[in-house]
Amino acid sequence: MTGKAAIVGIGATEFSKNSGRSELRLAIECITAALADAGIAPEEVNGLLTLTMDNNGVGSVARSLGIRSVSLFAEIPGGGGGGCGTVALAAAAIEAGLADVVVCYRAMNERSQERFGLPTATYGGGGLATSAAIDRSWHAPYGLSTPASTIGMTARRYMHEYGATSEDFGRVSVASRRHAATNPKAWFYGKPITLEDHQASRMIVDPLHLLDCCQESDGGVAIVVVSAERARAAARASGAGASGAGGVLISGAAQGMGPEPVLMSNYYRDVITTTQETGIAARQLWQQSGLSAADIDVAILYDHFTPAVLMQLEALGFCGVGEAPDFIRDGAIEIDGRLPVNTHGGQLGEAYIHGFNGIAEAVRQLRGTAVNQVADARHVVVTSGSHVPTSALVLSRL
Amino acid sequence: MTGKAAIVGIGATEFSKNSGRSELRLAIECITAALADAGIAPEEVNGLLTLTMDNNGVGSVARSLGIRSVSLFAEIPGGGGGGCGTVALAAAAIEAGLADVVVCYRAMNERSQERFGLPTATYGGGGLATSAAIDRSWHAPYGLSTPASTIGMTARRYMHEYGATSEDFGRVSVASRRHAATNPKAWFYGKPITLEDHQASRMIVDPLHLLDCCQESDGGVAIVVVSAERARAAARASGAGASGAGGVLISGAAQGMGPEPVLMSNYYRDVITTTQETGIAARQLWQQSGLSAADIDVAILYDHFTPAVLMQLEALGFCGVGEAPDFIRDGAIEIDGRLPVNTHGGQLGEAYIHGFNGIAEAVRQLRGTAVNQVADARHVVVTSGSHVPTSALVLSRL
Repeated sequence: MTGKAAIVGIGATEFSKNSGRSELRLAIECITAALADAGIAPEEVNGLLTLTMDNNGVGSVARSLGIRSVSLFAEIPGGGGGGCGTVALAAAAIEAGLADVVVCYRAMNERSQERFGLPTATYGGGGLATSAAIDRSWHAPYGLSTPASTIGMTARRYMHEYGATSEDFGRVSVASRRHAATNPKAWFYGKPITLEDHQASRMIVDPLHLLDCCQESDGGVAIVVVSAERARAAARASGAGASGAGGVLISGAAQGMGPEPVLMSNYYRDVITTTQETGIAARQLWQQSGLSAADIDVAILYDHFTPAVLMQLEALGFCGVGEAPDFIRDGAIEIDGRLPVNTHGGQLGEAYIHGFNGIAEAVRQLRGTAVNQVADARHVVVTSGSHVPTSALVLSRL
Repeated sequence: MTGKAAIVGIGATEFSKNSGRSELRLAIECITAALADAGIAPEEVNGLLTLTMDNNGVGSVARSLGIRSVSLFAEIPGGGGGGCGTVALAAAAIEAGLADVVVCYRAMNERSQERFGLPTATYGGGGLATSAAIDRSWHAPYGLSTPASTIGMTARRYMHEYGATSEDFGRVSVASRRHAATNPKAWFYGKPITLEDHQASRMIVDPLHLLDCCQESDGGVAIVVVSAERARAAARASGAGASGAGGVLISGAAQGMGPEPVLMSNYYRDVITTTQETGIAARQLWQQSGLSAADIDVAILYDHFTPAVLMQLEALGFCGVGEAPDFIRDGAIEIDGRLPVNTHGGQLGEAYIHGFNGIAEAVRQLRGTAVNQVADARHVVVTSGSHVPTSALVLSRL
């Protein structure tokens, strides 16, 4: 797994609240853009990976792209937790020789078609006759029927255990919106917020204010994965040399699911204030890459809700358990801080594309093409999901 | 991919028409049996793979098994085409170091809960707002709303192109039921049929008679995959030596999706009488394993409908295109023939568990423990699905 595969292309649609076109079209647009970015023709693609929640089946995508032969296709369950996992599977499959050019994609009209933020008996996908529906029946009847309500439970407990405050959560939002404000692709471009704005925003589910919650978005993002060898050859051919131009090395790639898992509702554990999923992924990342939190220049952390960012900082080892509020208090996660986090604006500020836009931002940081560029970024950690079966990557300069 | 991983455990529930218990319970029963067969404790499992159509989410399964940490989880789309694909992904992930003990499972109450054979606007899974639903809208309004009706189209074309007859299809059914008749686990144990029975059975969708269609079944099957190195060490420890006792080598593992794919309805190709999916998988299998059709001792071919077996014999290279009716006419696919096929009785005779029971039969043939044992079986090919995004394996003695 270590260093055998690379990301060589990223592509995205615009991010909006109403794309005005089908999810399949969004998928094809972002994939086409990613392949153009990689300089690879669609007919060379022989692997397609996405999330189970994506409504664009691999067959429909293959047909629309004109691919005549695919030798790898799979989907990852667990909502947004699967994003980095698609890249991990791509890397493993390429290493094993199952595919050569793998496209990981996520495209959805999550604002204009199906809003995940609305109460539903079936959130997270699956019908009523599934094990997931049985899981939900344990808490949904008590009003925990949206992502915010389920995460709110653990956020409140986190405050109780460690003395964290709503302002601590707010600082995550302020940082993300600062970064989004200078990112023309971000929905909240030019719209920074203050901690006072955060505090004044309406309560969605105690203790989560509106500005603790990510957006609902329409859009699509695709990632192209090939062998590191091919990426290096392409870099040499382009004259960029070993530093890689478009290619970014996958130094670590892991999935993680902890004990007694329940989608977004892991209440059946002794401790519910840590993201054990991220911890399981993190241990693999550091082992695979030979790196540690101290080596990371930028962190792209899944921010469906602000408290999740704090818990992930702890799970990844950037600080101790319960210490994240202190870690971020002095602006450490802002662009000029010790560990810039979500430099694109995150899902709070740029768009909610189940974290795939964060993978793209990590690639830009390593290419040196991010709008909020961190000087000399060499290693970036990216996470997908939190409080769900999750995944994470360490990406490095080629 | 070649020879790096092995299957070391298989497990199944009984096969019935009404299990009387939940699909999750079926999953846990077959997984527990497979782990016992492998001599591996549930807490050692760190990979879980299934089909997107399986209603038992990986989280619910992990929780029910008591697993505390999982580092690989994914699902394969394409209905029954994903079975061997789960084993392929398991092998790739193990080779890449993403997991050590991977369980591939499929459990369903497909007869007592949701019958795939009934007309539906959403067969193959997915809701109405998906690309798959759009695909179905091209043919479902014309009455092609069951698997039999969609496959019937290609079966009729196959007859037209190559002069195949209903009797040619029937010979597949007769062979499977002959094998099922001596398999106590098979639903049709003790119930062989004649070609006359096949011809006299009622028409379901022209040209498919009842006895051209597989069963609808309740049940579950699980497969345990580990590294070949671990399998060999276990074999040595058990005193079985290099020949392996419980372990069976994965010599080849591949997925395949062809041009213009539409689930079970690939009518948008110049030729619709070949299973190009199986051909794509086959080319990889022979390349990975260094074997060819001539080296195969037993074939377990996905038999949702009898014509699919003929087309797969051709796609795998056991005979030329259009020659399968001749190939099987003299009983070649029966237990004492040149190429015994579906020695457990197949899905026509044993049970329809989306082909996972066929993977288990391949393992038994190589272990020498099949009820209809082929003498000295060394290499077995197994396929999953036909006319869908598909997959296949070559399994060999360890």
